[in-house]
Amino acid sequence: MASTLMRRMLRSPSSTLRTSHAVGVYVVRQIASAPSAGTGKWREEKDTMGVIKVPQDRYWGAQTQRSLQNFEIGGHQHRMPEQLIRAYGVLKKCCAKVNMEYGLDPTKAKAIMQAAQEVAEGKLDDHFPLVVWQTGSGTQTNMNVNEVIANRAGEILGHPPGSKAVHPNDHVNMGQSSNDSFPTAMHVAAMLEAHSKLVPKLSGLQKALEEKSKEFWDIVKIGRTHTMDAVPLRLGDVFSAYATQVKYGCERIEASYDLLLQLAQGGTAVGSGLNSKKGFDVKLAAELASETGLQFKPAPNKFEALAANDAYVFTSGALNTVAVSLMKIANDIRMLGSGPRCGLGELELPSNEPGSSIMPGKVNPTQCEAMTMVCCQVMGNHVAITVGGSQGHFELNVYKPLMANALLMSMRLLGDASESFRKNCVVGLKANEGKIAEYLQKSLMLVTALNPVIGYDKAAAVAKKAHKEETTLKAAAIELGYLTEAQFDEAVDPLKMLGPK
Amino acid sequence: MASTLMRRMLRSPSSTLRTSHAVGVYVVRQIASAPSAGTGKWREEKDTMGVIKVPQDRYWGAQTQRSLQNFEIGGHQHRMPEQLIRAYGVLKKCCAKVNMEYGLDPTKAKAIMQAAQEVAEGKLDDHFPLVVWQTGSGTQTNMNVNEVIANRAGEILGHPPGSKAVHPNDHVNMGQSSNDSFPTAMHVAAMLEAHSKLVPKLSGLQKALEEKSKEFWDIVKIGRTHTMDAVPLRLGDVFSAYATQVKYGCERIEASYDLLLQLAQGGTAVGSGLNSKKGFDVKLAAELASETGLQFKPAPNKFEALAANDAYVFTSGALNTVAVSLMKIANDIRMLGSGPRCGLGELELPSNEPGSSIMPGKVNPTQCEAMTMVCCQVMGNHVAITVGGSQGHFELNVYKPLMANALLMSMRLLGDASESFRKNCVVGLKANEGKIAEYLQKSLMLVTALNPVIGYDKAAAVAKKAHKEETTLKAAAIELGYLTEAQFDEAVDPLKMLGPK
Amino acid sequence: MASTLMRRMLRSPSSTLRTSHAVGVYVVRQIASAPSAGTGKWREEKDTMGVIKVPQDRYWGAQTQRSLQNFEIGGHQHRMPEQLIRAYGVLKKCCAKVNMEYGLDPTKAKAIMQAAQEVAEGKLDDHFPLVVWQTGSGTQTNMNVNEVIANRAGEILGHPPGSKAVHPNDHVNMGQSSNDSFPTAMHVAAMLEAHSKLVPKLSGLQKALEEKSKEFWDIVKIGRTHTMDAVPLRLGDVFSAYATQVKYGCERIEASYDLLLQLAQGGTAVGSGLNSKKGFDVKLAAELASETGLQFKPAPNKFEALAANDAYVFTSGALNTVAVSLMKIANDIRMLGSGPRCGLGELELPSNEPGSSIMPGKVNPTQCEAMTMVCCQVMGNHVAITVGGSQGHFELNVYKPLMANALLMSMRLLGDASESFRKNCVVGLKANEGKIAEYLQKSLMLVTALNPVIGYDKAAAVAKKAHKEETTLKAAAIELGYLTEAQFDEAVDPLKMLGPK
Amino acid sequence: MASTLMRRMLRSPSSTLRTSHAVGVYVVRQIASAPSAGTGKWREEKDTMGVIKVPQDRYWGAQTQRSLQNFEIGGHQHRMPEQLIRAYGVLKKCCAKVNMEYGLDPTKAKAIMQAAQEVAEGKLDDHFPLVVWQTGSGTQTNMNVNEVIANRAGEILGHPPGSKAVHPNDHVNMGQSSNDSFPTAMHVAAMLEAHSKLVPKLSGLQKALEEKSKEFWDIVKIGRTHTMDAVPLRLGDVFSAYATQVKYGCERIEASYDLLLQLAQGGTAVGSGLNSKKGFDVKLAAELASETGLQFKPAPNKFEALAANDAYVFTSGALNTVAVSLMKIANDIRMLGSGPRCGLGELELPSNEPGSSIMPGKVNPTQCEAMTMVCCQVMGNHVAITVGGSQGHFELNVYKPLMANALLMSMRLLGDASESFRKNCVVGLKANEGKIAEYLQKSLMLVTALNPVIGYDKAAAVAKKAHKEETTLKAAAIELGYLTEAQFDEAVDPLKMLGPK
Repeated sequence: MASTLMRRMLRSPSSTLRTSHAVGVYVVRQIASAPSAGTGKWREEKDTMGVIKVPQDRYWGAQTQRSLQNFEIGGHQHRMPEQLIRAYGVLKKCCAKVNMEYGLDPTKAKAIMQAAQEVAEGKLDDHFPLVVWQTGSGTQTNMNVNEVIANRAGEILGHPPGSKAVHPNDHVNMGQSSNDSFPTAMHVAAMLEAHSKLVPKLSGLQKALEEKSKEFWDIVKIGRTHTMDAVPLRLGDVFSAYATQVKYGCERIEASYDLLLQLAQGGTAVGSGLNSKKGFDVKLAAELASETGLQFKPAPNKFEALAANDAYVFTSGALNTVAVSLMKIANDIRMLGSGPRCGLGELELPSNEPGSSIMPGKVNPTQCEAMTMVCCQVMGNHVAITVGGSQGHFELNVYKPLMANALLMSMRLLGDASESFRKNCVVGLKANEGKIAEYLQKSLMLVTALNPVIGYDKAAAVAKKAHKEETTLKAAAIELGYLTEAQFDEAVDPLKMLGPK
Repeated sequence: MASTLMRRMLRSPSSTLRTSHAVGVYVVRQIASAPSAGTGKWREEKDTMGVIKVPQDRYWGAQTQRSLQNFEIGGHQHRMPEQLIRAYGVLKKCCAKVNMEYGLDPTKAKAIMQAAQEVAEGKLDDHFPLVVWQTGSGTQTNMNVNEVIANRAGEILGHPPGSKAVHPNDHVNMGQSSNDSFPTAMHVAAMLEAHSKLVPKLSGLQKALEEKSKEFWDIVKIGRTHTMDAVPLRLGDVFSAYATQVKYGCERIEASYDLLLQLAQGGTAVGSGLNSKKGFDVKLAAELASETGLQFKPAPNKFEALAANDAYVFTSGALNTVAVSLMKIANDIRMLGSGPRCGLGELELPSNEPGSSIMPGKVNPTQCEAMTMVCCQVMGNHVAITVGGSQGHFELNVYKPLMANALLMSMRLLGDASESFRKNCVVGLKANEGKIAEYLQKSLMLVTALNPVIGYDKAAAVAKKAHKEETTLKAAAIELGYLTEAQFDEAVDPLKMLGPK
Repeated sequence: MASTLMRRMLRSPSSTLRTSHAVGVYVVRQIASAPSAGTGKWREEKDTMGVIKVPQDRYWGAQTQRSLQNFEIGGHQHRMPEQLIRAYGVLKKCCAKVNMEYGLDPTKAKAIMQAAQEVAEGKLDDHFPLVVWQTGSGTQTNMNVNEVIANRAGEILGHPPGSKAVHPNDHVNMGQSSNDSFPTAMHVAAMLEAHSKLVPKLSGLQKALEEKSKEFWDIVKIGRTHTMDAVPLRLGDVFSAYATQVKYGCERIEASYDLLLQLAQGGTAVGSGLNSKKGFDVKLAAELASETGLQFKPAPNKFEALAANDAYVFTSGALNTVAVSLMKIANDIRMLGSGPRCGLGELELPSNEPGSSIMPGKVNPTQCEAMTMVCCQVMGNHVAITVGGSQGHFELNVYKPLMANALLMSMRLLGDASESFRKNCVVGLKANEGKIAEYLQKSLMLVTALNPVIGYDKAAAVAKKAHKEETTLKAAAIELGYLTEAQFDEAVDPLKMLGPK
Repeated sequence: MASTLMRRMLRSPSSTLRTSHAVGVYVVRQIASAPSAGTGKWREEKDTMGVIKVPQDRYWGAQTQRSLQNFEIGGHQHRMPEQLIRAYGVLKKCCAKVNMEYGLDPTKAKAIMQAAQEVAEGKLDDHFPLVVWQTGSGTQTNMNVNEVIANRAGEILGHPPGSKAVHPNDHVNMGQSSNDSFPTAMHVAAMLEAHSKLVPKLSGLQKALEEKSKEFWDIVKIGRTHTMDAVPLRLGDVFSAYATQVKYGCERIEASYDLLLQLAQGGTAVGSGLNSKKGFDVKLAAELASETGLQFKPAPNKFEALAANDAYVFTSGALNTVAVSLMKIANDIRMLGSGPRCGLGELELPSNEPGSSIMPGKVNPTQCEAMTMVCCQVMGNHVAITVGGSQGHFELNVYKPLMANALLMSMRLLGDASESFRKNCVVGLKANEGKIAEYLQKSLMLVTALNPVIGYDKAAAVAKKAHKEETTLKAAAIELGYLTEAQFDEAVDPLKMLGPK
């Protein structure tokens, strides 16, 4: 069952921008346009503050509507990330299942599970209109989830929205607090995104780089340190370094799993677990593990799990490192592909689109540009997460929606950009072997091979003379009387300069 | 005419989350759902790379469609910010008008101007599907604008989309390059957002704080330094400091106008102005000034205006300072309003929504939380902008879409959050005068008033004795024999401790 | 033997600010005053660029002197961190030992080892005057080390400085490049600092917090979420959360060890190992492991180990998380200790110094302030490391000195501040039990215990009534007719609200 | 008189690393080695907490000694920046002068003024041992200044240290609080550093870049956008862009002067001015203006001036922008100078030192590397300042020493690095005209000149054909039959492509 949900979740459209490459045309998707009373019809909903009107065709209730009106910040593009909403669906489904064991009426519980499953699959995306910039505990989004599930579950059981036949607090939120369920949903969402999307996409990039490393194995090129000519190495070595960076990146992300798998659920309002039941945390984690295939477990110290979101800060630090790695790789590929005639020109990048609205025929390293821009945003998001993470007060950090949004954004951007970079750039990279050979031939830094033969100081003199007189190393060395031509040829061979002796 | 456009732009819906407070219900707005061939119909468009299918009901052309397929990064929520698209509409309108003077056929020019005006007013928002994570010069968005305007202008003149009766490059992009028009649109968008929305909303907050300062003028309270009890001040003084911070914030933003008003337009591909016409830059800036009422002018050095986006970095630095100020203010108000019974409790914040899904009757400082989360994101965006800004290479910085998105996001979030904070928090703030008086009465730091009378060392002894023995300052002072009761009462009067002598 | 060196290194004075608490007086230490020809005497040194004068009483040579003159940036306070210099001493000692196996004359090798040991022990600190802001590969500091060791080793063998009897390049730097030795020294320094100082000091803080958790176990206090009154928990729970944060912090730092233990040494100039010997990397890592007791090993991909410093970026991410945790803890303790009469006042912090130059008797949470300032700097250093780490070009990242300085600074500051905070704040913390009990008594959030009895909505009504009428929950509940006094007392008992049922 | 002090301050050695280029040798300077009882002698000092021993040969008193022992964080290299200490000297001198008008005994006042002048001139640097990581208000450094001046002034009047003949609180700190004097010293230090060092050094760099722009005016080179070949421009244009960036950088720094010139002094403990005298703030600002030649004035709202340090955050934002500009410039120069044979090779950078310990003859862009590392640290410091700035609580921001240290460090590093970069890199830059001409000749982007002649699409076809067949544009254009050779030569002339028509 777990795998079925996972498959459905992954299949469900998280991107609005899908193309069918077979036919080269755009596959349509209707985009969620949440706030609506397009029908012109409204109904009344009620909470502890009183009655309020909500759109007839939306499942949300009074607290969601209040938040909509109280937090007009950022607009549509700042809605709570869909990854979080769907993770909440999984969580509420599992809670209902466990709550049956603690006395929740099975009829209601099953309706709740069905409605929650719809949330998990993205079928109710239009019913989650709230923006990130709300209560810092995410209470309003928890209530949005509770209200939507309650009304939809009620509907399943034949009751109209607003009936509270299934009650958002008493039945859906039963034994939970926003303070423990929101960070739980944060962890579930991050694990699903990391494990199912980000790491696989990074691994895909790693494999593409490794394949390039093999493809370019026999190509010997000049190295560059300080951006200046240095001793030679294989073009395959260069790509092996890139692949290693990405591989370590995956490991760094995975190093954050252990604490992300710890769940706050069961801590309720302050971490003590008041109004929860003994054993609820253990059962819930087991249920989530079964549902997702990920080894969730209760946080051993739930006070920490509410008061701080350090696991997110650390995970963001891993993403930040991945951004650093990808920025290096994309920058290098951009520079190695610069030209075509007045740059380094050692690589040729695929031409995916016209490059300039004024310079005809120009092709630009646009995938490198998209990637490096994404890396900057990830670095920025990391600072946002860091500051928010440092600002918890007492029993609850109230920067949770900010942190959830920034981390899930960073994960998605890094994953999508890695996939785009792999597909539209790396696999199509070609080596310009002529150019590479030309550089290798004329570089002065092959002189390094003379160090063990004539010593550093004489070797330096050879290089300086060749540079000053714009001649070859060989000519300079012979003229200085340090070696014969045969000795030089014996000593200076790029193919012998690729490793230790 | 200028003001008409401005009014229409400002009137056009930039927020999807509007409420009519008169009736307490939600005002409907259909949200842009850009990529679509809901009709199932497609047409062919063509660029220098060949033919490609685009949705029949969308105005964009081949280059836009290519970008859609090449950059599947981040999805719908990462579309280029609407503020930029609309600024582009204003810009293209003005370009067409000036180009008429340089030979552009007036019939085409007028159709272009009409179409561009529709872009400026947000009527064509659905036709701009491209994400931020694309070419670093924004070329693809420039072409998206050119293609939409060309097809729409063609339609106005009776030609079907794809006809190139009005050509996106030759007529709409005439004499421009993405390299100068994109940074121009960035500056126009930032100026419009800052001048028309952000600064007015900040000023509104400033005024609300000033009004509170007046309202609270007569309330004398204990001061706190290092979070510890200190000497007294007026509650009005506290709010005067907040108002001053926000006022300076507006001035800091305005200090960036001078360089934001400088436009790259006319520099074309590398800053030299190749393929532009002499005087085009001056006329265009004048036209933009007339259209918007903002004093745009050509950048004196257009090489700098393309190669660097330092004006954006500096502006972001101003926003970062505003975020710092607002974080301080919101944090203070949150802490002063903490309680109601176990916190400082000097302020009472409005109750806008139920605060807890588990703790009945709880009311939280949610507006402070939304505000401080926004401030964190602005700090993070600032780092993203800083890194991107530092990474220009040679004649063109290619982190422009990242920078545009992050800056315009920061501006909008700060503006919206300031307005929400003002409306839903500041204006409803009340002082808890009983609590304030109680604190003032019992604070030990009134002892400071004794410094000039009995000296620092004896005053310290009084305070320490009172603290240790949990008595009053007066009792301690008398017991130590430093003053009589009358002398004490004469010296220690909070109302006399509010300023220099 | 390893442990002997380690002990000596740890014993050697890394702090200039030591106090002997036994006598309460200041223990003197002469501070390094590197650049000097106080004697007025100079000698000549030479490199491939020619002759240059250096101070007679310093061991450094021509390249160091050149760097001194070429990089007048930041002054004395910006010298390369001593941790790096000392790690370099350990490294050079091990290189000499291994080089003996590859043909280095044993007499010279042993002199080099002796001189390197002196560097490792800090005895030659005065001979390392170079600032961080130099060549991005750290070449000049590598040469500074080579020159000092060569001259000192020559001196040991009876030759005057400058004789090149022991040659800095040919004998000390033998088979190494700055490009592999500098990042190796970076990793050795970071491991020594983390393992020998930072983590032990953090563990010390963790233990102190755990002891406070036990000490405060029986104290039940009001919880605070959103800074507002919430349900109760133990004061011991609060400190258990802090201790957990610090414990996880140690684990996060340790999670970076695996890649920090990988060494670049053997990669020489571009990662290929040209001019190194086969097996050198393995022997050297083994020797370093033996010398330090830390399991160093050769990096499997040395191209990556030179071109990127991602291991440093990731480690800095761990430090950043620790800073976030410590900021939360120090902030909380500051706020809980606020007062003494007009704040929360639940904790009493030790009085270490007079708090105010104007307010007599004031005591401030100065250790919290020092700690939180350190945390800010660590967050800032993290951004510096991130940007520098992202900027490698081709075969070599040339932001290494910046990264070394910032990371080692962050480690030292976090370690020192943790120790200071433990010693001067945490161990002396006292609970103000009277105040804590008073808050607990009057809090309205005990109403949460009524949820399972009378339902959320009625419980909310009780809380609101009590708040509005400034009465007790019990009075409100009875007046509303929801419960009898006995029922209320049965239901609402803080001691029963400390966990799930 | 003002100018005399300023001259002495500027003359006094702020750098420990000075060289006399005339003789090529190192000029000696004895470095401060603050904590000392090298004499083995101690004396007793006393504050409100009791008696404590201090070194006999140091002027500081009890509170300084306590701080030394309570804050063993970071060690010697983390002492409070000397710029701040010297600014404090200027401030205390002016306070004493004004205090004479308010009744301070003239004999004492004059001794205080003389001692303060010695602090301002750096003569007493050894007496300021405290680290940055102390009380967040800087109280301990204020007391360090008070104590040193009091003891030294007492000595001038014939009293031994510790006598309190001149009292640190009653006479030196008279009418001041750390809370107003520390931020005042911060502003004075920042203004002096910016106005007297940073901006002049940046202006020097600007002029050097302008001179290069003139020198390179006639050199036409290929442009590069997206790092790809683009249309031509002058090498002089490139340097004009750099000069413009630096010029704007100076203006951005100066834009922060207005608020930096506002002083907190007179606000005393919470901003109200309690225990200060009416008019003191105005007189003090006037005195400081007279002393420094900078137009200081009292902050109109002193509550804001204590509670927030936004002026510092904004100034840091300006420095951050300067770092962004300098990073761009140094990166470009590094890349344009890459090679010498396998890079772009358009520029030749001065050879200041041997570049490699393994590759003989290598010369690296080390000044660019130092500069870009400095820029990273400035970006990092900016984040530290931002976070610290956002964290004020109530009436006092207690992150002041952090902010002072980071800002003054950033200023000094940017100033020093600009001067080093100017002197050791920019003035010695040479254009490699042969290489530049070669690139210009073969670039395909000259095709852009054909747009107005044959249209964008045909021009693109020409470029693509030439690229694919590795031929010239001219050959391709003729073969495609679009133009004759004469028409091509007429149209495509780099010298005609340098501006609009």
